[in-house]
This record gives sequence, structure tokens and C-alpha cells, in this order.
Amino acid sequence: MRIIKLNEQSRANILADLLKRDPNNYSAYEGTVQEIVDDVRARGDEALFEYTKKFDGAELSADNIRVTQAEIQEALSQVDPGLLAVMKKSMKNIREYHEKQKQYSWFDSKPNGTILGQKVTALSSVGVYVPGGKAAYPSSVLMNIIPAEVAGVEKIVMVTPPGKDGKVNPVTLIAAHLAGATEVYKVGGAQAIASLAFGTKSIPRVNKIVGPGNIFVALAKKAVYGHVSIDSIAGPSEILVLADETANPRYVAADLLSQAEHDELASAILVTTSMELAEKVSAEADAFVQNLSRKAILEKSLENYGYILVADSMEDAIETANAIASEHLEIVTKNPFEVMTKIQNAGAIFMGEYSSEPLGDYFAGPNHVLPTNGTAKFFSPLGVDDFIKKSSIIYYSREALEAVHTDIESFAEAEHLTAHANSIRVRFE
Amino acid sequence: MRIIKLNEQSRANILADLLKRDPNNYSAYEGTVQEIVDDVRARGDEALFEYTKKFDGAELSADNIRVTQAEIQEALSQVDPGLLAVMKKSMKNIREYHEKQKQYSWFDSKPNGTILGQKVTALSSVGVYVPGGKAAYPSSVLMNIIPAEVAGVEKIVMVTPPGKDGKVNPVTLIAAHLAGATEVYKVGGAQAIASLAFGTKSIPRVNKIVGPGNIFVALAKKAVYGHVSIDSIAGPSEILVLADETANPRYVAADLLSQAEHDELASAILVTTSMELAEKVSAEADAFVQNLSRKAILEKSLENYGYILVADSMEDAIETANAIASEHLEIVTKNPFEVMTKIQNAGAIFMGEYSSEPLGDYFAGPNHVLPTNGTAKFFSPLGVDDFIKKSSIIYYSREALEAVHTDIESFAEAEHLTAHANSIRVRFE
Repeated sequence: MRIIKLNEQSRANILADLLKRDPNNYSAYEGTVQEIVDDVRARGDEALFEYTKKFDGAELSADNIRVTQAEIQEALSQVDPGLLAVMKKSMKNIREYHEKQKQYSWFDSKPNGTILGQKVTALSSVGVYVPGGKAAYPSSVLMNIIPAEVAGVEKIVMVTPPGKDGKVNPVTLIAAHLAGATEVYKVGGAQAIASLAFGTKSIPRVNKIVGPGNIFVALAKKAVYGHVSIDSIAGPSEILVLADETANPRYVAADLLSQAEHDELASAILVTTSMELAEKVSAEADAFVQNLSRKAILEKSLENYGYILVADSMEDAIETANAIASEHLEIVTKNPFEVMTKIQNAGAIFMGEYSSEPLGDYFAGPNHVLPTNGTAKFFSPLGVDDFIKKSSIIYYSREALEAVHTDIESFAEAEHLTAHANSIRVRFE
Repeated sequence: MRIIKLNEQSRANILADLLKRDPNNYSAYEGTVQEIVDDVRARGDEALFEYTKKFDGAELSADNIRVTQAEIQEALSQVDPGLLAVMKKSMKNIREYHEKQKQYSWFDSKPNGTILGQKVTALSSVGVYVPGGKAAYPSSVLMNIIPAEVAGVEKIVMVTPPGKDGKVNPVTLIAAHLAGATEVYKVGGAQAIASLAFGTKSIPRVNKIVGPGNIFVALAKKAVYGHVSIDSIAGPSEILVLADETANPRYVAADLLSQAEHDELASAILVTTSMELAEKVSAEADAFVQNLSRKAILEKSLENYGYILVADSMEDAIETANAIASEHLEIVTKNPFEVMTKIQNAGAIFMGEYSSEPLGDYFAGPNHVLPTNGTAKFFSPLGVDDFIKKSSIIYYSREALEAVHTDIESFAEAEHLTAHANSIRVRFE
């Protein structure tokens, strides 16, 4: 891995490079996606079946688009029992962590007869997109569905593209079943997103759509935003390790590669105050790459977006971590908790040398759906918050309103909204 | 106001009618807006000044684009002291209510050496858009800025279009100053949104943009979503009153008109179980309209989107209220709290006959920026939640990781992510 001295210029260059991966830059496909979305909105199932034939090569109809109980039973017999056992342990942790995120309705009453508060309600229905293709990512299915289930969403609709044989991956199906999906449909791509946003005869309309997908899925989600809610638009994965001279170079190198292996746009960055660590991590990483199965991807992503930055001080290193706002941040320093207090922007923060990033991907409990590409400056990990909404509660007694009615009337009059003023005034004529 | 019998057909017709007001349907302007956004992104201040000259007729430069302390002092001398006093009382309530919304970082530790939690951080910067034009809405300025200030946002950047004289409305300016805006710039329209999203020499880039605006502003916000966060895209205002025979028809009529006066797309709906109330409210509303200053708008909006629906049962009435998911919902029944328990979807819920909607617009404390056009099914009122974000916290001791390391490795191997597995394995070689 290349080693670069951290200074204002190198930091600016790297920040600009990283933003090139922005999914918002793929506007070239926007027209195509909008066409598919509009077509499904207008023609419903008919368009949906046509696109599924065209893009997935599968013949679907209203009779076989929904996964049946028999198909779930069949899938269950195909899944490795060892994997099933691990998934169940992981699910327990994910559920326990998300239970702690629950928010409750609250109110504040005063003796003059006022009650103010917020009522928390679960969304009534959500759609979860799960990518198809050769690889199945059951961990991602768990991470998207469990928070919705914990929030109390009644209708959790999963969609995932079918293979040419019209079947969906059995591991995906079982993960969905265990996590609490209430219905599963064999559709994918922009056409699946449009179906969930507007509803078709076969696919129910939902209130929010979450889950990762390719660029067509991401753009379709952006296109339907406002008609429904969506989670944030995910970019390529990234890890930033903040380390001092106390870090174990072999662990750091292995952790950097764990994200670099995702795809050629993935980014792995070490920011350290120690040139010695920098050199050792570089050597360890290069050695690991030779022996890992995803060598070709690793070489590409490290060449594209892999950096070892050597900072003059931990302060500079932290400032850079905040500017990059990485999806995953590992703090491997003498006192990681103290460094954490200075972190403004990160999706998930892994502390100490045994909190390796994949622990969070698979097992610890916190969600692995995290803001990418600098959006940790304003977005949060997927969680129970994404599946609830709030309503304000306002109650005033006659006495309470009477005490302030002229204030309200004069504020409304100042904005020239006379019917607003009138609605208060009529109560005290 | 027209009276309609509530049944499946009339409900479906009204729902379809209301959705015609959807701001997402104005795609005709998307091209123009995207051009302005791209131009400002590419050329910065130069483009921004050109558009301000073109659309607002004001000559701006880097020297006079930012509102100065002297301008704030001048504005202060122009604002009616009575209004100032009311604004201060209102601000106190808004701040007190939003203080109660604060969320705190939390963690959960276990004796095996694991710590999991969430760190809550305020966004470091936000932009608040405030419309210009003849009317000033200081209440809206307060409602957008105070939650950001309570959340702890350090940089609150307000933008509002200047008049031809290069000045901004003094009331707007004073409301911003009182509420806690840290800087104010005299720019508006799509060009202001683009400046906040990408930054120019004069305008700082922010993490999130909130605030109401015309269709160009709304589409610009949608265009920059993902580069920055935005609040939801606001549609026309609406009120739904749920009432039984105990309601005072004069109060109900006045409250319906308070929202109908906003603009010709505003919607005012009464759903009641009492034909007698329906008839009385209709007559009262028609009489009020004749004597209110915004008569022309009221007549139009009631004709377009004003309905009195008579339901067979309170159950049917509630179901319709949930299907419409109104921005404002008033419950004026014998026992409003019991009805409230059945409400799934509403922006703000006003209970009892003295909780008139304008009380919430101006004074009570809850935010008046609320989800419109059915989006209360998935969006919440603007609040402190909009100005914070969360980071997951993960700490595992060696002991804790050792106990589960083979589980994590096997999960990663099952997903064929061998570098993920490797990063756990190296720690126990």
C-alpha cells in the first residue's frame, strides 16, 4: 500500500478522489431509470413482468411472483445447518441492540391545563430490497429487516430478483424468513422499487423502501423519494483506521483489507502518527493480498482508494478522520475512548485492537448499514429510528388558551393571516 | 362548503384529488432547476450573482451578500415592539418543547468486556431557507432555526432572497437573529440551495438544508439530496377535523378556514358522524368567508380541496383520517384522547375544542413544519432529530472476541468474503 505524508494538499486530493465514487454522479442512467419507474407506475404488473423477463430472464406472473410457504420449506432444507446456527446467534445480538434504540411517546402536562408531547408510531409497511446475483448476503437481509420488526412494522415486504429459473437464493430466503419478513416477491431492479412505491396488482405499496442495490436500484430509490421515504443512498464501502505506534500492524492490515475486498471502488485508509507502523502495515497488507481469494479486487481497490497517511500529530489525524467521515472507523490507540470523544463524523466506531470491523458486519449487534461517502456528516446508521415516525400532541384547556389568545391573534395578524387570527378569536367572543 | 356522504367511492376520489397537489408532480421544471444547480456548482459566486440579478433584480457581490451587524440593528429599529414581545414569548415555548426532544448518547456494557452504544452528535452546519416576497413569516423562521440551535448545531446559515434594493425583510432578519442564526445571506431560489449544497466563495457549504420554498426551491432540494441531507419536501397546507355531534360548529368552521386561507391548493376537510354538525359548519364557513380578508383564496381552496364528509361511524371517520394522513388533525369529540389512540398518521394532533390549529402554528411550542400530502405516513414534524446524527459504538475485549471468533469467521466464509474472515482469524493465530 502506498504511504503518503498527510498535509493540507494530500488531504484535499484524497477527499476529492473519494468523492468521485459518489453514487449521485451516475446521472447518465437517470433517464433510463425514470422511464422504467414511470412505466411500472402506469402499467403495473404488465410492465413489471416484462422488465423481469428482460433483465432477469425469468417468466413471472401473478401466480408465481410471491414466494410460497413450500418454497421457504424447500430453501430451509438447502441451507447449511452450521450457517443457520450462526445466523441465529447473530440475530439475537442484532435484535437485542436494536431493542435498546426504541423510542417512546412522551408528554408534558402543566397544571394550567396544557398537554404537549410526541406520539411515536411504527410505519405500517416497508419494502426491503435485497440484491440477487451469484453471491448471497444473508447478513444484509438480517440488518435491514430486524430493525423494522423491532420497531413494530406490521407489513415487511422483501423483494429480490429471481434467477432465470424463477427462484430466489435459498439463504436469502431463510434469512428473510427468520428475521421477520411478512411477504417476499421475486422482483428486482428499478422495476421492483417502482412497484413498492406505487403498488401494482401483485405488489403492495409501502411507506418506505430500504436496502442496498446496484446503481439502477439506487437511482430508482432517489426517483421515488417523496412518494415514499427511503433510507440513504449507499455508496461503496470504506474503512478508516486511526492508529498510533501501539497498534498491531498485522491486525490493522487485515482490517483494511476486509473492506477493500468488497469491490474496486471500496476505500481502505490508515491514518497514523507512526511512520514505523505505516511501513509495517504496508508490508503486511501487500503480503496478505497475495494469499486472499479476492486478490484481483483487493489489488484494484488498494490502487484506487487505498492510502496510508502519516500525520504529524494525533490531532491532525483526527481532523482528517472527521473530514473523511468514514463509514467504518477503527480507533487503535493507547486510549481509544479518549480519541472517540473527538470524533464528529463516522458511521460506526470500532474501539481497541479486538474490535475488528467484521465483528460489526456480522455479529456484535449494531447495524452494518451505515452512511458512506462522507454522508456520516449528516446521516445515521440504519436503525429503529428509520421505521418510526412522530406526531405532535397539543392539548390546551379553555383557561390556558384564554391566557394567551391575544398574543396568538396579534402574531397571526402580523403575518396577515386573518383567518388564523379569527379561529382563535371566535372562541372568546 | 360542500357536504359529501363518506363511502369507499367518495373516499377514493378525494384521496386521488388530494394527491394531485403533490410537489413531486412538477417534473416540468426539473430540467431548469438542474441547470441552475449545475451552473452554481461549476461557477460558484459568479453564477450565483448572475441568477440573483436575473430573478431578484438585485446587484450582489462578495462585499454585500452577507447581512451585517449594522443591517440587523437597522432592522431591529423597524420591527413593531408588540410583535417583538410576542415572538419572544413564542420562542420560549418553542425552545422548551424542543429541549424535551433531545436524545442522548447511550451505551450498554457487559462483564465479558463488551461495550455497545450510540454516540449522538449535532450536525456541524445547516442551511435554513426562508422565502422572500411581500409577506414575511417570522414564525416559520423561528420553527426552522430553534430546533437546530437546541440540537447544538454550531453554524446555522440562513438564506433569503433580497428585494430589488438588495435588502431583506426586517422582520425575517430579526426572527433569525433572535432564534440563533449565525450568518445570513441575501440569496434565494434554486441558486441559494445549490450554493449551500456545494459551497461558493461567499456561501459556506452545509451538511443539511431545511426550510420551505416555492417549486424551484423544492426541486433544487431534491436535486442536491444525497450530497447534503434535506428536510422533507413540503406540499400545500392541510387540516382535517374529526368531530362528533358535541363539537362547536362555529369553532370547527373557523379552524377549517385557518388552513384554507394559505393558498389555492390548501385543503380543509371535516369528517364527522353528525349530519347536523356538517350542515351547521358548512353554513358557518360560508358566512365567515364573506368577512375575511383572504376571501378570494378561501373561495378557491374550498372549491378545490374543501370537503365536509359525513361518516356512518366514528370508526369509518378515523379510518379516513388515517388514509389521508393530514398535516394537521383536530380531534373534537366527546373523548379526544381515546380517539387519539387510534390515530396512525398525522403531522400534529390537536385535541379538544380549545386546541385550535393556529395555536400550534404560532405559540404552543411544537413545530409547525409538518409532513404534508400524505407523507405523515412516513415523515415526522421537523425537530431536534433532524439536526443530530448517530454513530454506533463497538468495543470487544480479547476475551469477548475469542468466545465468538469462529462464528464470525464462518459467517464471513459463507458470504465468500475471505478477507473479512482473515481479519478475525489473525487475532487468534
